[in-house]
Amino acid sequence: MDSAPAPVVVLVRPQLAENIGMAARAMLNCGLTELRLVAPDEPPDHPRALAAATHADGVLRTARVFATLEEAVGDLNALFATCPRRRGMVKEVLTPRAAAADMRSMVARGERPGILFGPERTGLESDEVSVADVQVSIPLNPGFNSLNLAQAVLIMGYEWWQAADTTVERVLVGNKAVPATKAQVLGFFTRLEGALDTCGFLRDAEMRPTMVRNIRAIFQRAGLMTHEVNTLQGIVTGLTERPHAPPIPGSRRGKGEGVPE
Amino acid sequence: MDSAPAPVVVLVRPQLAENIGMAARAMLNCGLTELRLVAPDEPPDHPRALAAATHADGVLRTARVFATLEEAVGDLNALFATCPRRRGMVKEVLTPRAAAADMRSMVARGERPGILFGPERTGLESDEVSVADVQVSIPLNPGFNSLNLAQAVLIMGYEWWQAADTTVERVLVGNKAVPATKAQVLGFFTRLEGALDTCGFLRDAEMRPTMVRNIRAIFQRAGLMTHEVNTLQGIVTGLTERPHAPPIPGSRRGKGEGVPE
Repeated sequence: MDSAPAPVVVLVRPQLAENIGMAARAMLNCGLTELRLVAPDEPPDHPRALAAATHADGVLRTARVFATLEEAVGDLNALFATCPRRRGMVKEVLTPRAAAADMRSMVARGERPGILFGPERTGLESDEVSVADVQVSIPLNPGFNSLNLAQAVLIMGYEWWQAADTTVERVLVGNKAVPATKAQVLGFFTRLEGALDTCGFLRDAEMRPTMVRNIRAIFQRAGLMTHEVNTLQGIVTGLTERPHAPPIPGSRRGKGEGVPE
Repeated sequence: MDSAPAPVVVLVRPQLAENIGMAARAMLNCGLTELRLVAPDEPPDHPRALAAATHADGVLRTARVFATLEEAVGDLNALFATCPRRRGMVKEVLTPRAAAADMRSMVARGERPGILFGPERTGLESDEVSVADVQVSIPLNPGFNSLNLAQAVLIMGYEWWQAADTTVERVLVGNKAVPATKAQVLGFFTRLEGALDTCGFLRDAEMRPTMVRNIRAIFQRAGLMTHEVNTLQGIVTGLTERPHAPPIPGSRRGKGEGVPE
C-alpha cells in the first residue's frame, strides 16, 4: 500500500490469523501500512485474518512473509523489540512514547525503523531481542500486563500517531459556537438580576451581593456562546412574561407562539 | 473488585459478548476494574465474554447491568463521552491524554468520573452524549479511524495509566550493568590502539589521528559497561595472542582452553 514513510510492523511467528487481522486493523488506524510476518502459523490472507481486519484488508494483501527474522529486517535501519524488560543483556528499554519520538526522528532523516512483536503465547525469544537495537516495554498494571497482540500493536501505533498529531487538546465544537462577549454576558446578568429583584428572589439586602456573585459564577463557568446568551435571555423572558396556563389545543400558543391573551 | 479509585467504564448498549470480555481485559491491563453496562445485548457473564476476558473475568463477574444510562451514572460526578466530534451541541472535545489528566485530578479530589462508550455499530447517540460533561475524540488516521470497542477502552485506559506512571522513558537494564568509568574506556582505547599499531593497521601516520578518532567514536556511542570493557579487552587479547590454528579434536584447545603450543 502507498503511504507516508512510517515504521514497518514485524510479527514474529504469530499463531492466530485473527490476531494478524486485528493487528492489521490497528496498524491502519494509526497510519501504519507495511506488515511483515516471520514464519507465521497461518498466512496473512487467511479468511479469518481478512474478516478480523474489516476494512484494513489491504494491509494484509500487501503483507510479506519471511522464513527468518534476519531476512525480514535486512533492509531496515533500527529495530524496536516490544517485550517485557529482558535483564539478561545490557540494552536500552524505552516507553512506547519515547520509542515513537525516536522513530519520528529516524523517519524524518530518511531511516527505516521496524517494530518487532513476538508470538502470542511466549513473546520474543532472547536471541530475537538481540537482533533489535532497543527494547520497548509498555507501562501497564503490573498485576495484569499481558496484552493481546493486536492491542500491543495498537499502543505502539497510537503513540506513533500522537507523536506527530497536532490536535488541540481541548477544543469547543458546535455549529454556532461564537464565544459571547463580556458585554453580552453582563447584559444577561443585569437582565436576570433585575427579574430576580422584581419577583422577590433577591429581597434579602444583606445576602443579595453574595447570591448575585454565586449565580454569576454558575454561568461564568459555562463559557457561554453568543447564541446561548440569547437563549438564556429568552428563558428569562419566557419565565417572567408568559402566562403559565396550559396551551390551548389548536391555538397558535400550542405551536410555541406564546401570544399574550 | 477492590481497587484504587479510578474511572468507571460504562458500555452503552454493547452488542457482542466477546467485545465486553475484551474490554474487561483491556480495563484490567490499565488498572480499571469497575464496569457498568447499559442494556447490553448479551450479559457480562456470557461464556464468550468470560473466554475473551482471559484472566480479567473478575471485572465481568462484578460488572453491573442497568436498564438506562441515567441509572448507570447517577452516582458519578463527571462523564466523558468517547465519540467522534459531535457538532450539533456546544461541548468541549478533549484528547484522551487531556481527559486522563482531568480524570486524575478529579479522582485526587475525591470525585468519581465515568467514561462512556457507545455500541459497536453506531456509537453513542446525541441524547446520550448530552448526558456527558465533555466529549473525547481519539486522534487517529482520518482515513480509517473506526476503533474496535475494546481498543477504544484500551486507549482511554492506557492514557489513564500513563497519566500517573513514573516509568523512566529510557533506562538501561542488564544483570551486570555498571557503567564503565572513563579511565576504563580510555584504558581499552590505549590497549586497542597499541595492538593496531603493532599489527600495522594504523601504519599511515597522516591518517592515524582520524582513524583513531573514528574507532573511538564507535565504542563511545555504545555507552559501555564495566564488564563489557573487560570483554573487549579479552577480545583484543584473544585476537592478538592466540594462534589461529583450528582446534585439535579431543584436545583441551577444542574446549576453548587455547593453550599455546
